Amino acid sequence: MNKNPIGIFDSGIGGLTIAKEIRKILPKEDIIYLGDTARLPYGTKSIEAIIKFSTENAQFLISRGAKFIVIACYSSSSVALDIVQKRFSVPVIGVIKPGVKKALELTKTAKIGVIGTTLTIYSGAYEKAFKKLNKQCEVLGRACPLFVSLVEEGWFDHPATELIAETYLKPLKEDNIDTLLLGCTHFPLLIGVIKKIMGDINYVDAAREVGVELVQELKKLNLENDQGNGNISIYLTDLSMNFKEIGERFLGEPLKSVSRVSLKGT
Amino acid sequence: MNKNPIGIFDSGIGGLTIAKEIRKILPKEDIIYLGDTARLPYGTKSIEAIIKFSTENAQFLISRGAKFIVIACYSSSSVALDIVQKRFSVPVIGVIKPGVKKALELTKTAKIGVIGTTLTIYSGAYEKAFKKLNKQCEVLGRACPLFVSLVEEGWFDHPATELIAETYLKPLKEDNIDTLLLGCTHFPLLIGVIKKIMGDINYVDAAREVGVELVQELKKLNLENDQGNGNISIYLTDLSMNFKEIGERFLGEPLKSVSRVSLKGT
Repeated sequence: MNKNPIGIFDSGIGGLTIAKEIRKILPKEDIIYLGDTARLPYGTKSIEAIIKFSTENAQFLISRGAKFIVIACYSSSSVALDIVQKRFSVPVIGVIKPGVKKALELTKTAKIGVIGTTLTIYSGAYEKAFKKLNKQCEVLGRACPLFVSLVEEGWFDHPATELIAETYLKPLKEDNIDTLLLGCTHFPLLIGVIKKIMGDINYVDAAREVGVELVQELKKLNLENDQGNGNISIYLTDLSMNFKEIGERFLGEPLKSVSRVSLKGT
Repeated sequence: MNKNPIGIFDSGIGGLTIAKEIRKILPKEDIIYLGDTARLPYGTKSIEAIIKFSTENAQFLISRGAKFIVIACYSSSSVALDIVQKRFSVPVIGVIKPGVKKALELTKTAKIGVIGTTLTIYSGAYEKAFKKLNKQCEVLGRACPLFVSLVEEGWFDHPATELIAETYLKPLKEDNIDTLLLGCTHFPLLIGVIKKIMGDINYVDAAREVGVELVQELKKLNLENDQGNGNISIYLTDLSMNFKEIGERFLGEPLKSVSRVSLKGT
């Protein structure tokens, strides 16, 4: 039992989809969420930069009492998880492994596709995670950087979105994958157009799986709190014009407590 | 006469298109270019954040001896120019006014369109600049945020690019503008698809106009250098995977001297 909050960070507000799933599965836990909106996106920047930003984010959450840290950003989980884990004594999980486990559970042909930002795909983090659990599976990665901007523009079913999705997904379709892992917080919002192209295969959105993993870890470490109020406090390094509207779409409920915060680097 | 370099800053490497024009028109001047690639893009962030970033950028250039500062970023020029001008004693120009002057020279119907990032358009900076010089003109602004990502992806003539351009530009086409101002460093790279939709009207890319304004200002202030080596030193706050390739496309020549720099806020 530990009444301190769970800390979650992301490059922006997309990680609120993960906060949403955690709130469903752990309604009594308090959450402190940090979105590094001043420096987003992470997916097109260097590994060195992401490691620096991620360490600063974790440091902030710990300074606010976080008992556990969830890295909700796929780019950050791909390249900075190990380093953040080593650097701090608070337990830290990312979003890569939970999705990989689920994909391996679902696949029958062991041909799995992964889509994500340029950084996530080129880092090879997914391939490494898959091979660690199952040497026989075949993993096909595709970077889909425009998907992030399309979601931020709210163009979920614009004809251009379909054309872009066709271009990105064609090689995965031709390779007959039977399971597709959505390796970016924004991509589940494009599931309609993705399904239209990829058809009847398995889709993995790691958000729910992260919640499951978190429950197990909290139990194992005796860090659960079943007497909290289920509050969520949101900190953003920049308050852009339409963060509230987009944030509420991701969290699925009104953003009540939002503060602007200046980290060392923002 | 002043042998110090001209300082140019942008949120990223798109401003190298402006450096390129300045190098053409002032081949003997040394240039120091700062791209804030760790925090790009600026066009989707808050005015407050852009002012902070812009001030830090100018501070860096001045600390390296800049005799004159050109803000090559349209978002930053839209919301931070006045403040940077007041804050420092070095003269500072932006990219808004030079383009506005040129558009007013070219238009016959006084119906002018402006496209830019969300921040540039919603700031109203262009409208204000137009009205200051000509109260009678009609200015129609359209935010085209996806254009930036399309250029960064290199999709200059993808069918999706055309569809997106059609959606963004339709209201300008219907309003029969006779002059279109490209209010973002990235947009001139999409001129092919833009012309296909907008047809035979006037197009203004401020890059060249900024060079003209700079020549006049340097002369007026007696800051010219006609004995320099025409060196360009490039500083970036992050070195992302493909910065070299994209940067050379923008500058139109090899990037020789590139350094990574940490500003206070990156």
